[in-house]
Amino acid sequence: MLADFKPRNPDYDHVVRDSFARQPYMADIGAWIDRLEPGLCELALERRPGLTQQHGFFHGGLVSALTDSAAGYACYSLYPPDSTVLTTEFKVNFLNPAQGTRLRARAQVVKAGKTLFVCQADAYAEESGERRHCLTGLFTMMCLTGKSDQVNFGRDVVST
Amino acid sequence: MLADFKPRNPDYDHVVRDSFARQPYMADIGAWIDRLEPGLCELALERRPGLTQQHGFFHGGLVSALTDSAAGYACYSLYPPDSTVLTTEFKVNFLNPAQGTRLRARAQVVKAGKTLFVCQADAYAEESGERRHCLTGLFTMMCLTGKSDQVNFGRDVVST
Amino acid sequence: MLADFKPRNPDYDHVVRDSFARQPYMADIGAWIDRLEPGLCELALERRPGLTQQHGFFHGGLVSALTDSAAGYACYSLYPPDSTVLTTEFKVNFLNPAQGTRLRARAQVVKAGKTLFVCQADAYAEESGERRHCLTGLFTMMCLTGKSDQVNFGRDVVST
Amino acid sequence: MLADFKPRNPDYDHVVRDSFARQPYMADIGAWIDRLEPGLCELALERRPGLTQQHGFFHGGLVSALTDSAAGYACYSLYPPDSTVLTTEFKVNFLNPAQGTRLRARAQVVKAGKTLFVCQADAYAEESGERRHCLTGLFTMMCLTGKSDQVNFGRDVVST
Repeated sequence: MLADFKPRNPDYDHVVRDSFARQPYMADIGAWIDRLEPGLCELALERRPGLTQQHGFFHGGLVSALTDSAAGYACYSLYPPDSTVLTTEFKVNFLNPAQGTRLRARAQVVKAGKTLFVCQADAYAEESGERRHCLTGLFTMMCLTGKSDQVNFGRDVVST
Repeated sequence: MLADFKPRNPDYDHVVRDSFARQPYMADIGAWIDRLEPGLCELALERRPGLTQQHGFFHGGLVSALTDSAAGYACYSLYPPDSTVLTTEFKVNFLNPAQGTRLRARAQVVKAGKTLFVCQADAYAEESGERRHCLTGLFTMMCLTGKSDQVNFGRDVVST
Repeated sequence: MLADFKPRNPDYDHVVRDSFARQPYMADIGAWIDRLEPGLCELALERRPGLTQQHGFFHGGLVSALTDSAAGYACYSLYPPDSTVLTTEFKVNFLNPAQGTRLRARAQVVKAGKTLFVCQADAYAEESGERRHCLTGLFTMMCLTGKSDQVNFGRDVVST
Repeated sequence: MLADFKPRNPDYDHVVRDSFARQPYMADIGAWIDRLEPGLCELALERRPGLTQQHGFFHGGLVSALTDSAAGYACYSLYPPDSTVLTTEFKVNFLNPAQGTRLRARAQVVKAGKTLFVCQADAYAEESGERRHCLTGLFTMMCLTGKSDQVNFGRDVVST
């Protein structure tokens, strides 16, 4: 059902991991890349008190944030060299409370266009070998070519 | 255009602020309630390095997380006593990079049903008196009556 | 990946087909039920001039309308007796132009709750044995119990 | 709150109405343009049996289809000459049953980018001077420049 994607950048693995490493927010929430293939990305993080809501579950906003990042990197793995990724929009449905000690987000590209990429993604809360499906969502990512992912560019650069 | 809502709980202000105060994630990202009225909630936070992406802007996932929380509390302000709030789903469009020193999310209830509430919300990045519109979104929140917002309930409780 | 669902109404096949037959809009666009299982529904229709946009493809609005109906009936197949179905919200991504002579929408339930059902659905344009993936979407359906699907109920009945 | 938009095509009114007139589906459902300004479009249609669901209300799929078209033309009114419009994705929330004799969809552009436009839109069912808010939604439209809106182009043209 899901397409078999060829990377447009042979160096995609390095490019994605390098971009991920430069995101302070990913370090702040303790996320790591658990799996990376062309068009597929899994991110994970461990529970700590600052990431929960009033019932002790992972906060829904955090769950969607991690999943958004997984979706962004699943798409970015298919981008050509010298490009950067921007979330255009996304939609998420919360299926079950994110109760567990580890949170995992898994994103797979559905359509790789020239400018727009569509990604399907899910989040799971894991604990003691059990896995709960917390969230399912659809993400649209833009491919900005000729833009460096590395410099801190100004506001005028991104005219989508 | 937006409805004038009557709170179903006269104590709504206390109830919302109390729930907010019990969310570790809100403290972790440094968010506070900047405005609260029946059917309306504004949350804000200050930039710190851990909240940014690779270009130094607020991370998109964080922007949607803050906005989701504002939407939840805008709805919760209209809930009856002895109820709790759950995000059913949401959709966000990113309009401009979240470049600024302060992030603000503003949510207003569009429809207050018996079980489901629909909320419209926007996020803005502010700096030196200037304001950029970063995100607009639609949120569906569920009203769970007869459930305490306070206890750390188990997984079986929430059968939506 | 998708759950194996048990119908809550042994008569689900009749109930769904009966509801479908009472929808004038389905007859107007020429749709039929091509497959029906617990938690799964496929609808199809043939191209006629009144269903196209300016380029001769199926109109995007029609594509989403057919998919919404497939999603509604996929969920309805899992509802208990004496209930009716209501679309709460949906989100669709258009992947490719709906170019073909037949349009097919396929919906599968992802989560069957007590009140809310989440459904994943796709649309395909078919022609000469070829199939194009036009649309992917997520749908939230409400289960209204104790409401007849058959009577023309008044506006006060549906207080979601 | 909504921006004041300058059309990029002085002939926008003619261009939009001409495109609308070439959509067989709009004629099929009996829709007309009720209001058109730069960045704003209202479409309306009258109830007839073929447009309703099992309770006699406008079918939800039809409501979203009309609103999608209003959103497309609100955006198209701001496009440069020699361009065409494509719905990238949309999300709708159903607020109340579409009970009435006339259906109206009103769309306003929120963000006019270079490639992507974001539009906010609502649908109303009207009867005897009363108006019910049926749907609210967010739409992303793509601006394809250098593509004719008029020819029946092939499948390879649209590589989004």
